Amino acid sequence: MSLLRENETLDDLQLKGIFVIQKKNAFRFGIDAVLLANFAKIKKDSTVIDLCSGTGIVPFIISAKTEASDIVGIEIQEDMVDMANRSAAYNKLNDKIKFIHKDIKDIEFIKTMAKANVITVNPPYKLINSGILNPNDKNAIARHEICCNLEDVIIAARILLKDNGRMFMVHRPERLVDILCLMRKHRIEPKTIQMIHPTLKKAPNIVLIEGQRDGGAFLKWREPIYVHKEDGSYTNEIEKIYARV
Amino acid sequence: MSLLRENETLDDLQLKGIFVIQKKNAFRFGIDAVLLANFAKIKKDSTVIDLCSGTGIVPFIISAKTEASDIVGIEIQEDMVDMANRSAAYNKLNDKIKFIHKDIKDIEFIKTMAKANVITVNPPYKLINSGILNPNDKNAIARHEICCNLEDVIIAARILLKDNGRMFMVHRPERLVDILCLMRKHRIEPKTIQMIHPTLKKAPNIVLIEGQRDGGAFLKWREPIYVHKEDGSYTNEIEKIYARV
Repeated sequence: MSLLRENETLDDLQLKGIFVIQKKNAFRFGIDAVLLANFAKIKKDSTVIDLCSGTGIVPFIISAKTEASDIVGIEIQEDMVDMANRSAAYNKLNDKIKFIHKDIKDIEFIKTMAKANVITVNPPYKLINSGILNPNDKNAIARHEICCNLEDVIIAARILLKDNGRMFMVHRPERLVDILCLMRKHRIEPKTIQMIHPTLKKAPNIVLIEGQRDGGAFLKWREPIYVHKEDGSYTNEIEKIYARV
Repeated sequence: MSLLRENETLDDLQLKGIFVIQKKNAFRFGIDAVLLANFAKIKKDSTVIDLCSGTGIVPFIISAKTEASDIVGIEIQEDMVDMANRSAAYNKLNDKIKFIHKDIKDIEFIKTMAKANVITVNPPYKLINSGILNPNDKNAIARHEICCNLEDVIIAARILLKDNGRMFMVHRPERLVDILCLMRKHRIEPKTIQMIHPTLKKAPNIVLIEGQRDGGAFLKWREPIYVHKEDGSYTNEIEKIYARV
């Protein structure tokens, strides 16, 4: 059996020789996943569960950048899980990273899983309110709350986290009221926020949030990250994040 | 009767010849009030109620910068109300600006007031949890939630706002979870956020929030404001805000 199927490519992560299989014309990993993996604080021997894992990009970056002992990715799209497991095998990371084909709304199953020190998630960002979406469109599933919404993600994280465990999420600033209110509702207290701005003068377009299961109320703000200089090139900070990747 | 009492000064707002009476060694107006008055969008002939009004600095700036028809400031400290009313008289603004000595927690009274198009508020920022505060300390009352807390402010704003009226608040970023969750709880939906950073590289230390009574859920982020350049001088943006003041 060949490694790649139709319309798939093997892409170099440029990080400890890791490659990841992606679809040619579908949702491909971008800066969100890289920023999330950079933001997450993961101690040696931590166990990590990545929700809405897609092609597994966040687990692969975390495996290369941290000393996490065990990483499980959960993804609802079966062909994505298949690609991610083939990537894990290709990179000889099967002992450390596993991908499972499950719906995070399947609470009975979620409750059977071993609890983790850390949850990471790059969930679909957009509310479904346009009515023009095709529910079989894989890009739409990755971007819109078709198969799971923000509250489903937070409920699953609450169940999956160990006591005082940490959740790290990347999302969109316009959803921040929903994010903070739902996290507090489900007792994953928001502890740290970092805003990502396209340039110095622009409003933020990405937000990184750390929550702690049953944490106390105090929200720390990190210094902002600016992605592009005025000439359009990456800032030194982003160059560093990619270099560390 | 002389204009000033013991330990009071008459300070030039440097704005359309307005002066404001303040105590020499007490809480004096700072950049928060100026930023709030700059952030608030107030249409011609709007009615405005300013909560936790102190010496009345926000109403005075708004009266100079906008075409609001009528501004009422509510303040719990009687001597502050007295100073603010003397300032209004000195500036011949008594027909437009009034200050009343009331507790915003007095819901029965709040319900008797005429509803406003706009609420502004620069509330006490700090939770009372240190236990070392003197409840008679006027600076402590202005800075800590001794006489009213964030939820009291939002409850009063909800009652005082006309349908779809707007609330504008300045606060601290570390309280953002409380702010957004309490606003949504009392159906003043957060609509716009602007973060103020001491310098480019630093995390924000002031947040400006606009909410709309019974507004729909969508949070717009404005471009950030940076207060100081690296050499410590004000940025052009802040110079402009003060110049407009």
